[in-house]
Amino acid sequence: MSGGARTDTEAVEQANTAFYEAMERGDFEAIADLWLDERHGDVSCVHPGWPVLTGRGEVLRSYALIMANTEYIQFFLTDVKVSVVADTALVTCTENILSGGPAEDGAELGPLVGQLVVATNVFRRTADGWKVWSHHGSPVLAESDDEEDDEGAV
Amino acid sequence: MSGGARTDTEAVEQANTAFYEAMERGDFEAIADLWLDERHGDVSCVHPGWPVLTGRGEVLRSYALIMANTEYIQFFLTDVKVSVVADTALVTCTENILSGGPAEDGAELGPLVGQLVVATNVFRRTADGWKVWSHHGSPVLAESDDEEDDEGAV
Repeated sequence: MSGGARTDTEAVEQANTAFYEAMERGDFEAIADLWLDERHGDVSCVHPGWPVLTGRGEVLRSYALIMANTEYIQFFLTDVKVSVVADTALVTCTENILSGGPAEDGAELGPLVGQLVVATNVFRRTADGWKVWSHHGSPVLAESDDEEDDEGAV
Repeated sequence: MSGGARTDTEAVEQANTAFYEAMERGDFEAIADLWLDERHGDVSCVHPGWPVLTGRGEVLRSYALIMANTEYIQFFLTDVKVSVVADTALVTCTENILSGGPAEDGAELGPLVGQLVVATNVFRRTADGWKVWSHHGSPVLAESDDEEDDEGAV
């Protein structure tokens, strides 16, 4: 994340990383800053297992809610693929998530849960850098025919 | 679906409808025609509960596989929202799916299954019309705080 991005692909990958790092820090302001301004288009967001959320207000409220219920979250991103066409970028990645809820019964942290999620993130180029137009995350439930390992069982 | 599309939004909505109608007909050629040509960018696809599929070859093979295992499928689309910015369009919709697998034990059709899926579909404008750049479908598992009805239980 240090240094300037040389190519569009690198700049998009940095924005994508920053998006997950902001979640890890529980940094609501950074998340709000990374989502596209409404002047540039309507944003949409699907969290794993959720219905579609539309518009900055609804999307940002969901992040406030998730952050309030998440004591700890870490994303190990794999399979990051970036495709840039003109001012739009499509990113797919696998989010290997380790998270914990608020503590119960005097413990320091709630139980840690591992989760395998795949995401499609669409970015728009703006004067202020690449911004998130759409995020869609979903749980990996089944094994594909190509990958018969334990991918669905984290 | 009849008549010409007057606005970009209408044209994109028609392409989105055509995409699901092709699935309903089991029309592989139409599906292949609706996915973006590789000259215009790398396509990606996430079927509900699946990992990410990348590139036309992998994506189209998955449709051939799904069609081979689907005797009957019908999509009732609701909450269709279209956002067009320059040559890219973002569509979100709820796919209320009714499907049946191949017949067993001499029955005409396998058991019908209802499924609630939300999708984010990204389209690119080409000389040959709007084409699918990315499709991400995911099961709705939980209820959001805003909608405490029976949305998760189809």
